[in-house]
Amino acid sequence: MTARRPSLAVVGATGAIGGVMLRILSQHADVWGEVRLVASPRSAGRKLIVRGEESEVLALSEDVFDGIDVALFLVPDEVSARWAPIAASKGAVVIDDSAAFRLDDDVPLVVPEINPHAARLRPRGIVASPNCTTLSLIVAVGALHAEFGLRELIVSSYQAVSGAGRDGVTALREQLSLVAGTELGTHPGDVRRALGDGAAAASNSPNSPNSPFSPFAAPVALNVVPWAGTDAGNGWSSEELAIREECRKVLGLPDLKTTATCVYVPVIATHSMSVHARFENEVAVDRAHEILATAPGVVLFDSPASGDFPTPSDVVGTDPTWVGRVRRSMDDPRALEMFICGDNLRKGAALNVAQIAESVAAEITLA
Amino acid sequence: MTARRPSLAVVGATGAIGGVMLRILSQHADVWGEVRLVASPRSAGRKLIVRGEESEVLALSEDVFDGIDVALFLVPDEVSARWAPIAASKGAVVIDDSAAFRLDDDVPLVVPEINPHAARLRPRGIVASPNCTTLSLIVAVGALHAEFGLRELIVSSYQAVSGAGRDGVTALREQLSLVAGTELGTHPGDVRRALGDGAAAASNSPNSPNSPFSPFAAPVALNVVPWAGTDAGNGWSSEELAIREECRKVLGLPDLKTTATCVYVPVIATHSMSVHARFENEVAVDRAHEILATAPGVVLFDSPASGDFPTPSDVVGTDPTWVGRVRRSMDDPRALEMFICGDNLRKGAALNVAQIAESVAAEITLA
Repeated sequence: MTARRPSLAVVGATGAIGGVMLRILSQHADVWGEVRLVASPRSAGRKLIVRGEESEVLALSEDVFDGIDVALFLVPDEVSARWAPIAASKGAVVIDDSAAFRLDDDVPLVVPEINPHAARLRPRGIVASPNCTTLSLIVAVGALHAEFGLRELIVSSYQAVSGAGRDGVTALREQLSLVAGTELGTHPGDVRRALGDGAAAASNSPNSPNSPFSPFAAPVALNVVPWAGTDAGNGWSSEELAIREECRKVLGLPDLKTTATCVYVPVIATHSMSVHARFENEVAVDRAHEILATAPGVVLFDSPASGDFPTPSDVVGTDPTWVGRVRRSMDDPRALEMFICGDNLRKGAALNVAQIAESVAAEITLA
Repeated sequence: MTARRPSLAVVGATGAIGGVMLRILSQHADVWGEVRLVASPRSAGRKLIVRGEESEVLALSEDVFDGIDVALFLVPDEVSARWAPIAASKGAVVIDDSAAFRLDDDVPLVVPEINPHAARLRPRGIVASPNCTTLSLIVAVGALHAEFGLRELIVSSYQAVSGAGRDGVTALREQLSLVAGTELGTHPGDVRRALGDGAAAASNSPNSPNSPFSPFAAPVALNVVPWAGTDAGNGWSSEELAIREECRKVLGLPDLKTTATCVYVPVIATHSMSVHARFENEVAVDRAHEILATAPGVVLFDSPASGDFPTPSDVVGTDPTWVGRVRRSMDDPRALEMFICGDNLRKGAALNVAQIAESVAAEITLA
């Protein structure tokens, strides 16, 4: 008996995350039957390679979901908000990478290493994948939670500019090329001067963007920018509240104490996190090491005196979450400090969506 | 009656912090009588400008302290350890910027905005100035402590490469020029490839230095490096323990819970800190704003939705500690989150030493 392989639609196939997704699909070529590539009408007609074969991109419409079992949405929030329910109404299981449904009570928010079974209960026919910042840390934190019982997270991020999309990468590149010829650091204010931001620096609001294309509220080359997303009230950014709400939902801990400070750094790809995690019980670094060394999707890289700790340049392009600098708080035997890195374009986006989709495919194939 | 103006020796006048010190002395030209510039024999004979006049650099020796009231030591730990006691034995009050005496019980550790009177009790004739990372945050935290009663600090740093000395700045510049011509971020691993670190990346210890001159254990261009200083045991770096011990000593809180994670970022000058501060009593953001807006040495810059938050490119070259992103923890009414920036070469080094020296000068002049 041969099981039918489910059919797949990739909506947003021509975007940055779509490109990573096509590479993942090519590596896992035996999971899917038909693979249909979908994008905005502007990109329709382009030809892309997936699983070694050329495939024409179709324009997003109701009809593209005919006969589709699983539809991946790798598109902006507003596109998902409109089209994901349409795909679901046509019978496709939607795996959505946008923020549109992440906090919807009728949509499970899934990280396969942590709550795989949540994907099976999907009243709206939609499964959501978390924000890239949440995904950068939650696999490691979830493994420790299973052993020690998590009570509080205090997180400071070192976020890559690709987390702000292609414009973020373009802005960093342009700013770096502007400062490249200057004698950086010889005089105060070199960065702003090189970026031609003198007028804004002299005003009361120096954090104006430097380029019409920059998604950042301040220069990001030779700088750090402690603001990600939009104003969420009471001084918080939307990215900071996303980490809080998504960690609570994925871990099934609605009252988990969680505080995040989100900061962009001049790194192209891979988010890093400095994490203070307090648990219900005392923790031992040796036991934490054992857990992290054997947890699925986690690489333990922790011998700092020998130079072994994760940095973005080690981690970029890899699938797992890397953890190092694990140490017990000197004032609290129940708390661990850690430094965690994850590629925001791999596990942080396309890979987690692909993992959810494959678990749904297995369920369909078995059914 | 005209008071005699005290005489000053600047040991380490030819270094990076020495250069900043000469500019500060020129701005506060009326404080000191004779100013004697001192450096290693290698730099002796050089001519430097201070207070508008050319001055020849003398070689460090016992004799250079003859008749000196106050001696500033802006030199490596081992030079201070040897020569500061000699200067003190000749009757000079030593203000030392190195780590050699910071945790000595008979040496006060002074931040004039916080514990100015501690400088008057100096059994060894030596007063120490804190590490640049401690100084980047403690003025703001100390002001809040005076009102609310500090109980715990959890800090993650975004440290500038100049905190690792001139070699740190050189390493970042060299690495940036190597990556400048590449299509950064097009492929994973661009940074390491551009830096010619392929061999090391393939080994088990990818965090090897990229340049014989780099003080960092990993590439710092387009990267972040979660390790500063030396191995202090149990997974901690020396810089992390310095923040802990120095905050406790300066604030007079020997049992203060304090945890730091120190991370270098590709910024030339100005250290930034993400700070979680828990107090004895409930805190209100409005009251915290009032305190920070009026505290000496602090600039409040906190309207993030308008783009007003401190970043290194705003703060570099300025004297104060800048504070923004002040918000109350959503789970703990006694805790505040903040983002703090301070120029590690100004308040973080030369300025704090100059401020201590001026308070000693006032004491000598009055005596």
